[in-house]
Amino acid sequence: MNTMRASVMTGVRTLQIEDRPVPTPGPHEVLVEVAAVGVCGSDVHYYREGRIGDFVVEDPMILGHELSGRIAAVGERVDPNRVGQRVAVEPQHPCRRCKQCTAGHYNLCPYMEFYATPPIDGAFCRYVTIDAEFAHPVPNSMSDEAAALLEPLSVAVTTMRKAKVAPGTSILIAGAGPIGVMCAQAARAFGAARIVVSDPLQSRRESALRFGATEVVDPFNEDVAALDPQVDAFVDASGAAPAVVSGIKAVGPAGHVVLVGMGSGDFALPIGYIQNMEIILTGVFRYTDTWPAAIHLVSSGAVDLDAMVTGRYDLEHVGEALDSDTDPASLKSIVVPK
Amino acid sequence: MNTMRASVMTGVRTLQIEDRPVPTPGPHEVLVEVAAVGVCGSDVHYYREGRIGDFVVEDPMILGHELSGRIAAVGERVDPNRVGQRVAVEPQHPCRRCKQCTAGHYNLCPYMEFYATPPIDGAFCRYVTIDAEFAHPVPNSMSDEAAALLEPLSVAVTTMRKAKVAPGTSILIAGAGPIGVMCAQAARAFGAARIVVSDPLQSRRESALRFGATEVVDPFNEDVAALDPQVDAFVDASGAAPAVVSGIKAVGPAGHVVLVGMGSGDFALPIGYIQNMEIILTGVFRYTDTWPAAIHLVSSGAVDLDAMVTGRYDLEHVGEALDSDTDPASLKSIVVPK
Amino acid sequence: MNTMRASVMTGVRTLQIEDRPVPTPGPHEVLVEVAAVGVCGSDVHYYREGRIGDFVVEDPMILGHELSGRIAAVGERVDPNRVGQRVAVEPQHPCRRCKQCTAGHYNLCPYMEFYATPPIDGAFCRYVTIDAEFAHPVPNSMSDEAAALLEPLSVAVTTMRKAKVAPGTSILIAGAGPIGVMCAQAARAFGAARIVVSDPLQSRRESALRFGATEVVDPFNEDVAALDPQVDAFVDASGAAPAVVSGIKAVGPAGHVVLVGMGSGDFALPIGYIQNMEIILTGVFRYTDTWPAAIHLVSSGAVDLDAMVTGRYDLEHVGEALDSDTDPASLKSIVVPK
Amino acid sequence: MNTMRASVMTGVRTLQIEDRPVPTPGPHEVLVEVAAVGVCGSDVHYYREGRIGDFVVEDPMILGHELSGRIAAVGERVDPNRVGQRVAVEPQHPCRRCKQCTAGHYNLCPYMEFYATPPIDGAFCRYVTIDAEFAHPVPNSMSDEAAALLEPLSVAVTTMRKAKVAPGTSILIAGAGPIGVMCAQAARAFGAARIVVSDPLQSRRESALRFGATEVVDPFNEDVAALDPQVDAFVDASGAAPAVVSGIKAVGPAGHVVLVGMGSGDFALPIGYIQNMEIILTGVFRYTDTWPAAIHLVSSGAVDLDAMVTGRYDLEHVGEALDSDTDPASLKSIVVPK
Repeated sequence: MNTMRASVMTGVRTLQIEDRPVPTPGPHEVLVEVAAVGVCGSDVHYYREGRIGDFVVEDPMILGHELSGRIAAVGERVDPNRVGQRVAVEPQHPCRRCKQCTAGHYNLCPYMEFYATPPIDGAFCRYVTIDAEFAHPVPNSMSDEAAALLEPLSVAVTTMRKAKVAPGTSILIAGAGPIGVMCAQAARAFGAARIVVSDPLQSRRESALRFGATEVVDPFNEDVAALDPQVDAFVDASGAAPAVVSGIKAVGPAGHVVLVGMGSGDFALPIGYIQNMEIILTGVFRYTDTWPAAIHLVSSGAVDLDAMVTGRYDLEHVGEALDSDTDPASLKSIVVPK
Repeated sequence: MNTMRASVMTGVRTLQIEDRPVPTPGPHEVLVEVAAVGVCGSDVHYYREGRIGDFVVEDPMILGHELSGRIAAVGERVDPNRVGQRVAVEPQHPCRRCKQCTAGHYNLCPYMEFYATPPIDGAFCRYVTIDAEFAHPVPNSMSDEAAALLEPLSVAVTTMRKAKVAPGTSILIAGAGPIGVMCAQAARAFGAARIVVSDPLQSRRESALRFGATEVVDPFNEDVAALDPQVDAFVDASGAAPAVVSGIKAVGPAGHVVLVGMGSGDFALPIGYIQNMEIILTGVFRYTDTWPAAIHLVSSGAVDLDAMVTGRYDLEHVGEALDSDTDPASLKSIVVPK
Repeated sequence: MNTMRASVMTGVRTLQIEDRPVPTPGPHEVLVEVAAVGVCGSDVHYYREGRIGDFVVEDPMILGHELSGRIAAVGERVDPNRVGQRVAVEPQHPCRRCKQCTAGHYNLCPYMEFYATPPIDGAFCRYVTIDAEFAHPVPNSMSDEAAALLEPLSVAVTTMRKAKVAPGTSILIAGAGPIGVMCAQAARAFGAARIVVSDPLQSRRESALRFGATEVVDPFNEDVAALDPQVDAFVDASGAAPAVVSGIKAVGPAGHVVLVGMGSGDFALPIGYIQNMEIILTGVFRYTDTWPAAIHLVSSGAVDLDAMVTGRYDLEHVGEALDSDTDPASLKSIVVPK
Repeated sequence: MNTMRASVMTGVRTLQIEDRPVPTPGPHEVLVEVAAVGVCGSDVHYYREGRIGDFVVEDPMILGHELSGRIAAVGERVDPNRVGQRVAVEPQHPCRRCKQCTAGHYNLCPYMEFYATPPIDGAFCRYVTIDAEFAHPVPNSMSDEAAALLEPLSVAVTTMRKAKVAPGTSILIAGAGPIGVMCAQAARAFGAARIVVSDPLQSRRESALRFGATEVVDPFNEDVAALDPQVDAFVDASGAAPAVVSGIKAVGPAGHVVLVGMGSGDFALPIGYIQNMEIILTGVFRYTDTWPAAIHLVSSGAVDLDAMVTGRYDLEHVGEALDSDTDPASLKSIVVPK
């Protein structure tokens, strides 16, 4: 059988099931039979708006980039014994030759081909190919769904690294959506002592408390900037300007700010505060070398990904999966491409 | 003689000569007879506006914090042989006990007493006291004026450290005022290969070329954000919003941005760019452990501070010194408190 | 009452109870009534040999430096409301002015006065003084004994920081004595995925497994250098030359080696291996800024200090406490100075 | 013409000129016509002893790995406009896929193919191939010989980075052979304030003074460990045990030690000193991302490579080139493979 079924985005808010050729793994690549795919906010953005900033969906494209599966075939120069192995997929294809790649920043490779980033197809389909090194074996104790969610957990792991979270750190996280909750779980696993999560929705604050927050605040009722004592790090997983501004002001001298949430454009930052406090501010764009750490966090029980899954969909219902975030009770949806 | 003459700021744009008691050095302190004091942009701000952000001049205060001199007396627990030593003064008095001080960030000490920052008096006078460790001996080959200017050079040294400048680095500096020129000189001394300085004034661009810039741009005629190849680091020494925004966009992946210039409030930063490129942005607020490095840079000839001095004033003419920046030919003014 | 009872080391293997004046807290200091004191290997060294390297006990000295207690009085410039507070003591007194102190390395201050390091008295007595900032408040849920053992846990925390242990790290620890076990617990709390502990004694290997090791090896039967895959970090807590050599060779490229154990002199290291693998090797000498992190690790349950206590002694039986390490079942002894 | 002349090592101290096929550049590779090749101590080791540690020359092999030349042809996926470009060659071929490569440590790739490291041929011949990214363009102002010596300068640049040399640093370098002199030049270019070079030979100490040393010592007459004040960093470029031991003891608290010299086996290090001072010790094994920085250092005049060349040889006289180090006046020999 040389074709497979795929859910293809053919226009804004338009998906259709198509037959596509099963891809052939090239040298150093493996073919993965997809078992589970998480729905990410970026998939939703592309689906609803056809773009994220400068990235525009111009041709039909398969969405989905949080995935696990089973190695179905291997290309040249890959150990054939890997066929059958259960794996989580790190969905990036860097050039491995440029200055960023050789410096250890392969996530910033300007020649990157990334799943479900135009014009590269993603994983709402039966089969994908990936570099063998980026098909990370997972233990049998880990579910397909948890293995798929190692991808957003990798974002959270990267965020913790950039925020310098270690045992005893205090951290503020703005936004208790999927990434905020991932970050709260990761913060706890990295040893953070105080984990404050702010979100205007009570249901999401409750969710944060279940997943690692030591305290929650409603930014509409409390002044986040007045947190006492100040925190060592602030992570924005909301993309909301007021949350970013008040969050930065909650950080103490020489503290760290990491922006993860995709916002709606540029806005004013408290520049004088950043200068006078020598705040170190940066962003997260994907990840490098996170799957082994993420696998350990889940295997050891420090992070619970299965409990975050609130909905499951097949290929025919990818549209519903992409719209599931409108339900406040939804945290993370999974597509099983049968 | 127990009194000394001082130029005291008694109101906005108001100075008067007063007799003040000569201070007595406490334990671990030395008394310094002031030889030369540089005029800094922050002195000018206080003089003209009576405040910088939250720091407000409410009582009469002596300005000036870039200084050199000679040890005239020592307090308890200081080697009496130091009397007579020529020194450059690091004008800060941290608590040495708080979390910032014990972490090596004494510049961020919340209990800091800093010269010419309200309500602490500065150095437009004959004598000051300072912790013995912060009276840094200078070689005889160094002029009093150069020794005073080790203070702004310390800002530039800190900036280079935070911008991770090392042999081969490419850097963009916005603003060719005193701090921009100091940064250009420091960048060259730290080994930067490409030093681009942007400034709208031709005279200042020419000044930058004399002091280390390898190329200059007029931001009104060229798109700084389009620098090709992108730079490793961007330093803002202008405080101007458009310069900061275009400067950030000139930086390549994983590059550094350091904000030194004191701006006129908060403004919008290119947040999406910072995130997608994982730019690391921070500010500079004073310095730690920079005098020994700065002394070497000047002694070895790598940085020329004497050539930056464009005006000299006595205590009676501090007001003129503070207004000298209105002359485009002025780069750095010195007060000699005779 | 102005005197207190103290156990004083008056010669090698010689202790006697003496009446000593209760010390008076100076400015910035507090007086602590001692509740519990852990026995450290360094106390044992001084007791048995009268020296550790260049540090020689020449006059009568009080041993003991792992302690908790209650603030009984405060000196000038300390909040009097702290009287009565339960605290863990960070037993060092750095100068706060030298290059090391201002750089954040106060543990390396050449003017350090450290408890129970000649000629400074330690804590096998009723009262001690310490800088207020180094009397760290502990929660009521923490026992006096656990609070005392935050000191050796601080050594382990420093070791983990230097070994760059983070979620997913693999680590080899040589030696399952008190420090090795502390390190195993700390490694688990820092997120290490694989924690190999080597010790020739089965009872100690079993102890390591109870306290965090994921596997143990008997170095007399297995080649530690042949661990597959190689580990990211090696910590020596044995001081034994063969353990250090084989441990270094177990580390992969760019890995970290941290030497904690006090050895019996210098010995040959595998220099070619260190070079070809660019191994980064360093040692641990005390700690900076570890109590807050250590308190969190114990409070959160990530580290269990109470379970490590295997013996309790009063002031009259300090000699027995110091000799308790000859019992293989002993892990950590506590002196309660009543 | 499909063959080229090469100087082949066919046994210990045995070389012969052979005709070899001109290699064909594969995808991403270029063919370089060799212009100049420096003679390295490792070439000499292989020539005289047939091995360096575990690396053994078992089959005929071409030596030489410090080289410059001109691009003569390009493989697939390389810009054909590069033909004719003058380049310096970074002589390594990492796998680009393993953990070390993706972490930015491609020099530590376990699958590395490195010029003149058995069984990979080197550059004492007319043509070689190399990855296009590792053929670094050099300016016309740079001689072929200087371009070849960018390779040992890269070792020195890496050493300075690992030793954390920056403006104001003080450094001790043991050994004033080619690598020691390169390190002295690099230290000066990185801004070191005090550069002490120790060597027992007066002629080599004089050479060090010409190339950047600010002071020299004869280790047979002076106690290097007693340097006052202590240095921030020690670099061993001697491989001699006594030099390493005394050099380590010359370093102050939290200082850096970098071992570059290839020694004659393992020996005892001052472990107690390393621990008590928290010295950070590591080694240098090749380099990553150094050519651009090295090119700038030479182009700017901060480092003078041409002045280090003391002998030139053609392919027929490679044996003499390899033995030139027995002349104390020899510093660096060049082979021009005509």
